[in-house]
Amino acid sequence: MGFQKPTGTQDFLPGTVEKWQFVEAKARDLCRRYNYREIRTPMFEQTELFKRGVGETTDIVEKEMYTFKDKGDRSMTLRPEGTAGVVRSYVENKLYGEPDVSKLYYIGPMFRYERPQAGRYRQFHQYGIEAFGATDPAIDAEVVSLGYQFCKELGLQGVTVEINSVGNPAVRAEYREKLLAFLTPMKDNLCKDCQSRIERNPMRVLDCKVDQDKFTDAPSILESLDEECSVHFEQVKDYLTLMEVDYVINPRLVRGLDYYTHTAFEYKAQGIGAIDTIGGGGRYNGLVGDIGGPDQPGIGFGLGLERILLILENQEIDLNAVKPLDVYLVGLGEAANREITKQLNLLRQHGFAAERDYLGRKMKAQMKSADRLHARYTAILGDDELVRGEIALKSMETGEQRTVKLSELHLCLE
Amino acid sequence: MGFQKPTGTQDFLPGTVEKWQFVEAKARDLCRRYNYREIRTPMFEQTELFKRGVGETTDIVEKEMYTFKDKGDRSMTLRPEGTAGVVRSYVENKLYGEPDVSKLYYIGPMFRYERPQAGRYRQFHQYGIEAFGATDPAIDAEVVSLGYQFCKELGLQGVTVEINSVGNPAVRAEYREKLLAFLTPMKDNLCKDCQSRIERNPMRVLDCKVDQDKFTDAPSILESLDEECSVHFEQVKDYLTLMEVDYVINPRLVRGLDYYTHTAFEYKAQGIGAIDTIGGGGRYNGLVGDIGGPDQPGIGFGLGLERILLILENQEIDLNAVKPLDVYLVGLGEAANREITKQLNLLRQHGFAAERDYLGRKMKAQMKSADRLHARYTAILGDDELVRGEIALKSMETGEQRTVKLSELHLCLE
Repeated sequence: MGFQKPTGTQDFLPGTVEKWQFVEAKARDLCRRYNYREIRTPMFEQTELFKRGVGETTDIVEKEMYTFKDKGDRSMTLRPEGTAGVVRSYVENKLYGEPDVSKLYYIGPMFRYERPQAGRYRQFHQYGIEAFGATDPAIDAEVVSLGYQFCKELGLQGVTVEINSVGNPAVRAEYREKLLAFLTPMKDNLCKDCQSRIERNPMRVLDCKVDQDKFTDAPSILESLDEECSVHFEQVKDYLTLMEVDYVINPRLVRGLDYYTHTAFEYKAQGIGAIDTIGGGGRYNGLVGDIGGPDQPGIGFGLGLERILLILENQEIDLNAVKPLDVYLVGLGEAANREITKQLNLLRQHGFAAERDYLGRKMKAQMKSADRLHARYTAILGDDELVRGEIALKSMETGEQRTVKLSELHLCLE
Repeated sequence: MGFQKPTGTQDFLPGTVEKWQFVEAKARDLCRRYNYREIRTPMFEQTELFKRGVGETTDIVEKEMYTFKDKGDRSMTLRPEGTAGVVRSYVENKLYGEPDVSKLYYIGPMFRYERPQAGRYRQFHQYGIEAFGATDPAIDAEVVSLGYQFCKELGLQGVTVEINSVGNPAVRAEYREKLLAFLTPMKDNLCKDCQSRIERNPMRVLDCKVDQDKFTDAPSILESLDEECSVHFEQVKDYLTLMEVDYVINPRLVRGLDYYTHTAFEYKAQGIGAIDTIGGGGRYNGLVGDIGGPDQPGIGFGLGLERILLILENQEIDLNAVKPLDVYLVGLGEAANREITKQLNLLRQHGFAAERDYLGRKMKAQMKSADRLHARYTAILGDDELVRGEIALKSMETGEQRTVKLSELHLCLE
């Protein structure tokens, strides 16, 4: 026999997992600086939440959810994205009652039953932030710039932000009519998905990968913006310029769901031969209300961590994430090995990363092990040294070797 | 309407989540020092893995698993514990082919459909380590001591380790007979669960919470240990003493599954009026083989993080996990607010935690916000200062106020 991981999932093993730790630590540190605080919501929620919060007509809800009945016969779904659960938690825990803007972030697994393909996983991982309670364009710019700064500080090359305004509901209703007038005559020439989207949600047609080239002359939503929406968008752009965010305007960047308003954006980076989308977000002033909460504005982004790690690898960016061992202890003989156990424990209590052999290997094999762990020092204890309360300490970097007191070993590792 | 989190799950919100971050950072730092490296396995696995790796006759597998069919009609189960997935990954990825002992850790959510009660959750979180490939008693002692040190460094009071040897399969077979001879005469007086356990797995009867007092005179497995098992156990105890681990021997501490061998242990801490179990572990030299891998020994522990956080709270241990803000920036007027946006961005790029207002509030309300965030400094920019390229900086600790150059603000926050 022999078990295998489920199709479309991954094991993150030592050597790779440190890159994840590095990227996550960077995400957390940025949120500390920008005053976003972590929120953790359950891995699964009531299915109805995602139907409402992601949208019944989306591919996610229609085709890709891990939905199951729990033992109490309630329909539950593994979270396919992060925002719906955070909004549910914001409402259920009445965070809107707090005097300040709620600035939240999450990092964790999401689940979609997609056809396995390169870079697409059924369990994947997102880093997202959400800010609730403010309509100030400064917060739109902050959200956009945080994600941008994250990509920059990771060292990603060729990072840009595409940005657009999708207006307010009145603007969108007007634009929808203009867009339908443009799309309807060409309907028969569009792909099957687009044909059905025209009826249900024409703005999502502009996202189509197949037909994109046919929409060059489509009306721009920016021409439909009213005064309020224009002012908001101008201010967001002004702030982004002040923050030196490298953005371009993409009037065809739309978000198909009705609760999206004003700012919409996507992050891009230079991939192999093509530009890769890393993630995106937008303002969703209608979502909190749609989910049963008070009328509170929100804005956020979600970034795909698998995608970011893949681009880092493609751009040959070394995160230097694996930390070296401080010291590898070698004991020669039974009494020395007993002392080694004690010293190892003391060094670890002093904060050092320390290791020994557990396989009864000869000294040469142990030194190879020290090498594999990139040990900064090795310390070798034989019976002679043990009697004198000393140990031989060797710097693996310089090759320098000296004898130090056992009781002072921890002082000699800096 | 209004959505609620699923029964038995929790939201971890700002204010609480920082305690989780602190405990997890401690867990990771210990693993760094002890040279355990993280492994991340999927949230769900083939159901069969848990039947094999946890045991068909356990409560977990019989009653508590979140099992569902995926869209490909395969039976999947949300992981109810951490070891089975790690062992599966160790085998599937052939980590046993590496020259060193595989020392791994995990932190993350687990899922069991239990009756909701205080401190029990359907999504709960564990910190666990596993070491594969070595039978040396030094690794048993290391595993036991790492969990002990974790509890100590968190500041938990009254931490002890209960330890036992459950021998090897031959020892256990012999002990099983002795135990049956002891239990069978009293069978009618035992609880229903114990009566059925006597047939299937008599060692698990000793774990019974209801009947425990009746087993005071039960035979001790320690009296059945053979030479190999005794020597191993003696060495583990010797090493634990060298490491100053506070342990007691509990001969009734057994692990019911056949793949457990030699060392078994549990961590306890002083709870409210009673002793609380935090977690435990043991050596499982048969498990890797049972799951379809080569004959490789293993040992590990699993600790319940909800339990640890509850005990920390009960023991009134303040982790001081919430970090203060470095500076809160206040802009008075439109031009000043624009400059504030720029300065905020620069300070954050310099590594400072910095914040501003997004709600158009008056200065007094902004200062209250700074207080709530425990800001170390506030910096106030009016039109006068802006013209001079300066800003008023106030230490919230000392009350001292001074005017500094905008271009040097980041130098004044240490």
